[in-house]
Amino acid sequence: MLADVELAKAYRLLNHGPTVLVSSAAGGKRNVMAAAWAMPLDFDPPKVLVVVDKSTYSRELIEASGEFVLNIPCRAQAAQVVRVGSESGHELDKFAASGLEPLPARKVGAPLVAGCIGYLECKVVPEPRNQSQYDLFIGEVVAAQADDALFSAGHWHFDDDPARRSVHYIAGGAFFATGDAFSVA
Amino acid sequence: MLADVELAKAYRLLNHGPTVLVSSAAGGKRNVMAAAWAMPLDFDPPKVLVVVDKSTYSRELIEASGEFVLNIPCRAQAAQVVRVGSESGHELDKFAASGLEPLPARKVGAPLVAGCIGYLECKVVPEPRNQSQYDLFIGEVVAAQADDALFSAGHWHFDDDPARRSVHYIAGGAFFATGDAFSVA
Repeated sequence: MLADVELAKAYRLLNHGPTVLVSSAAGGKRNVMAAAWAMPLDFDPPKVLVVVDKSTYSRELIEASGEFVLNIPCRAQAAQVVRVGSESGHELDKFAASGLEPLPARKVGAPLVAGCIGYLECKVVPEPRNQSQYDLFIGEVVAAQADDALFSAGHWHFDDDPARRSVHYIAGGAFFATGDAFSVA
Repeated sequence: MLADVELAKAYRLLNHGPTVLVSSAAGGKRNVMAAAWAMPLDFDPPKVLVVVDKSTYSRELIEASGEFVLNIPCRAQAAQVVRVGSESGHELDKFAASGLEPLPARKVGAPLVAGCIGYLECKVVPEPRNQSQYDLFIGEVVAAQADDALFSAGHWHFDDDPARRSVHYIAGGAFFATGDAFSVA
């Protein structure tokens, strides 16, 4: 079940470098794209970085709305991650085409992607030079949720079900699974 | 054995979101720190992002030299990653204290960290506002190398030796291993 994640711990959802889905909406339109280039930028208030190319439809929606969601997909969704990472929202409704289902977010107009294991709802911190020069967006995280069977007390607790772990995209449809946890003193 | 990585494929070393060691040198001093917040920013010429806090000694060395190396450590080095992520180079020589060995880089004065599985040698692309406001540095990758037993033809090929896989830091000494590769059509 989805549970709120304390904002000061929201970076923990992304700290291990999973690939994300970026969802957005503006003017009655919506879109979802895959992004391997997303990471935390600050703890509290939490900020994140994501690279969104100028050619993408998501870029239009994010610039129009000033909002986006970073959704953390699981391995069960890997084929859909590749699909929404290769098709363009200029040409089709990628939610409908991929079978991914949009759900209302808590604090932004951009939708959540159903079935993901974590969510960071973000408002763009405008930095025009980063956006135009580097396609780089800064988001302040205004709400965060995660599947409480997998994330609690500020930590991921992946179990033995490989289908419900995060993924790390490489290229050409290839991923690494998130492996087992280990600790050093 | 270390082999050159084609610059246009250098982003592949980082695309799956591993934790890195950031090494730096200036004025006869050197340092190494851990960073989970590093990722690719562009393909060709390749650029990377890394967050380097104002309080760190690495920050001084990187700003003085305009150079750094992102080293990709393996699980065998995890205890050293935690150590150089918790001690300060203001107070001790972290190479000597951790047992990590510096090696000469190809194109920058910052050292490589021996035993890592991949290296991205970077020159800072000055962006004063990002550096002061967000502790965010952009580097252009000027040389890249990787262990050719693990990375070839633009892809990581981790074998069954868990000690020679990359790692993904969480917090408090806890990591995820990089898991197994899988592909979707």
